[in-house]
Amino acid sequence: MPAIEGVRLATAAAGIRYPGRTDVMLATFSAGTTVAGVFTRSKCPSAPVEWCRARLGGGLARALVVNSGNANAFTGKNGRAATKLTADITAKVLHCKAGDVFLASTGVIGEPLDASKFGGVMAKLAEATSEATAGEDWVAAARAIMTTDTFPKVATATAKLGKTTVTINGIAKGAGMIAPDMGTMLSFVFTDAPIAARALQALLKEGVEDTFNAVTIDGDTSTSDTLLAFATGAAAARGAVRIARASDPRLKGFRAAFNSVLANLAEQVARDGEGARKLVEVMVDGAVSKASARRIARSIANSPLVKTAIAGEDANWGRVVMAVGKAGEPADRDRLSIWFGGIRVAHRGERDPGYDEEQVSAVMKKPEITLKVALGLGRGRDRVLTCDLTKEYVAINGDYRS
Amino acid sequence: MPAIEGVRLATAAAGIRYPGRTDVMLATFSAGTTVAGVFTRSKCPSAPVEWCRARLGGGLARALVVNSGNANAFTGKNGRAATKLTADITAKVLHCKAGDVFLASTGVIGEPLDASKFGGVMAKLAEATSEATAGEDWVAAARAIMTTDTFPKVATATAKLGKTTVTINGIAKGAGMIAPDMGTMLSFVFTDAPIAARALQALLKEGVEDTFNAVTIDGDTSTSDTLLAFATGAAAARGAVRIARASDPRLKGFRAAFNSVLANLAEQVARDGEGARKLVEVMVDGAVSKASARRIARSIANSPLVKTAIAGEDANWGRVVMAVGKAGEPADRDRLSIWFGGIRVAHRGERDPGYDEEQVSAVMKKPEITLKVALGLGRGRDRVLTCDLTKEYVAINGDYRS
Repeated sequence: MPAIEGVRLATAAAGIRYPGRTDVMLATFSAGTTVAGVFTRSKCPSAPVEWCRARLGGGLARALVVNSGNANAFTGKNGRAATKLTADITAKVLHCKAGDVFLASTGVIGEPLDASKFGGVMAKLAEATSEATAGEDWVAAARAIMTTDTFPKVATATAKLGKTTVTINGIAKGAGMIAPDMGTMLSFVFTDAPIAARALQALLKEGVEDTFNAVTIDGDTSTSDTLLAFATGAAAARGAVRIARASDPRLKGFRAAFNSVLANLAEQVARDGEGARKLVEVMVDGAVSKASARRIARSIANSPLVKTAIAGEDANWGRVVMAVGKAGEPADRDRLSIWFGGIRVAHRGERDPGYDEEQVSAVMKKPEITLKVALGLGRGRDRVLTCDLTKEYVAINGDYRS
Repeated sequence: MPAIEGVRLATAAAGIRYPGRTDVMLATFSAGTTVAGVFTRSKCPSAPVEWCRARLGGGLARALVVNSGNANAFTGKNGRAATKLTADITAKVLHCKAGDVFLASTGVIGEPLDASKFGGVMAKLAEATSEATAGEDWVAAARAIMTTDTFPKVATATAKLGKTTVTINGIAKGAGMIAPDMGTMLSFVFTDAPIAARALQALLKEGVEDTFNAVTIDGDTSTSDTLLAFATGAAAARGAVRIARASDPRLKGFRAAFNSVLANLAEQVARDGEGARKLVEVMVDGAVSKASARRIARSIANSPLVKTAIAGEDANWGRVVMAVGKAGEPADRDRLSIWFGGIRVAHRGERDPGYDEEQVSAVMKKPEITLKVALGLGRGRDRVLTCDLTKEYVAINGDYRS
């Protein structure tokens, strides 16, 4: 991971919940850094989500503090006090306003978060951010925010803004409680490009739709889903053009690079679904609209029976039919065709005449499986990423708290 | 199980899929038997569902043929031909019209059903129905239609119609691919009461709403869900009043008994969800409406994270908050209270001050758990039955076909 001018990272073990590992990360930003964010659509959002939403209007950020181990969700007044205390501790050490500190928390819900623990490590964290950030610091930051994730998730891309190369780095954490209809789980994207907050917000909102919002692990939407983007603008000093509006045509290359970072992180989240052994891409075409294709793709991707069949390496397309049928969207059984890994298994409402169980079985053994459904009704198409549902998912979630 | 005048039952092993077990049941009905039915709302229904829907208008039935092992769903023209052949074989042996034969199939989707196999056993089945039906025949019938069910599901009740006692017997099969928003999985209810088809249909439609439609195993709606009710009217000869309309006040006792049979069977289906070890009752009150309460209850009951927590005997009410939040219905985090097995664990958006982990843990070890959520917004309330999500569910569905 390359450095991003204006962004400094540090991690520490604050002892929030997990012994012997880092559980808090601090990112500091140079003055003038803009911020954009999208959040969970849950009616019961976490305290940090409410904190960030309320502070997004200013469009500026000086710091980001993220902890794992405790989501500070459903913690009532204590939760609000904990967010304020965290921001105050950070602002004091960094000599900035508390309102310029952004927060995210992930972990168990309903346990009070003892934010005073951040007090013990914040000075050290701030000191660490006085040094240049190296590639491994990005991985360390991604690692500090993991819960049941099995690997840290980082992605990077570059783009030209005018004649100047700018960089986009992103980190994410996923695992479980991840579903569409949300901002996303936790993900943070950083760039040195000089982009106004309003334009950054528009880019983020449009970019999330086919990336993070097209991922589902278990259909369960977290109370804490947060995706924040920070643009330090440091590249302006190297000649990068300043961008005020998302409609600026000079954003073309940047938009593509930005979306590729979001897509890359989103795919890593799907790949690392709790207990997952397979990455599953569900493609739907021939629907009456893109929205209809999305709903059908989600119905397939969230179906426990489809997901367990894939875990069992069984090309059980009958369950795909079931999931299409239950989606409530226009579908005509007798026009439906289904492919697993490029092999057509069902055609126009019946098993494909050329169906070869062995050939299909070989495809199902692969770690990445594309499941395609053609509805034959219209031109609507969409794509959702998910993973299989294994016994390990049940094991992980059957004793997560204990 | 008592006898129902006018209903005769028989079972056979037709070798549809499972070796060494019965897989087809025949019920014959006396002349004049009325029929009512509700079916899956899947856009991709099975061939037998389409067959029954098309024949329900006549309001009369002489026979019911149900097989397990093959759902005859997504089988195209062959599927339609198979339903016609099954009805023809049955009609010929029973000397009735094919249109008076009702059909249901359960099992694997997408495999052609070889209906000619019914030809080999139908004469024997018909002969068996010439004898009076005993209590164990009901259990045998329920057993013949099982797939991954672990026990046969039967229920019975009596009611007065006028001064005459009438009987209601029901059988059902459930297991997986079971969700609300449907007619139901497979269930058949029989009575000797003289009830016109239109009245029976109204009774069934109203009865299913808080029974079968309030059950979910995995949120997956089958292509084959079928609930049929048959009323032979034989009790009229013993003085039972003839009922033409569902609004008839003399139906009061019958309606209650009828609904109790539906509720009993629905509960058995929830209890016997694939891999289930616990029966879970999700109660929601204080919602803005009953419909809103139902959607929130379903969101909780279908949440993989709530279901795995219950499998792990963990009173993880944070996940209940998550499921309330993602339902998209009006909810106010700071008014929310949650109970597990009668013990309040969260109150007004925070962990209950009197929360005692040990006390709650004891409740979670029980085989039946009631999970109650009070929203504190209005007077809407509802109840949904479900089960836990265990590794066995994944095992059962990871290699169901192979």
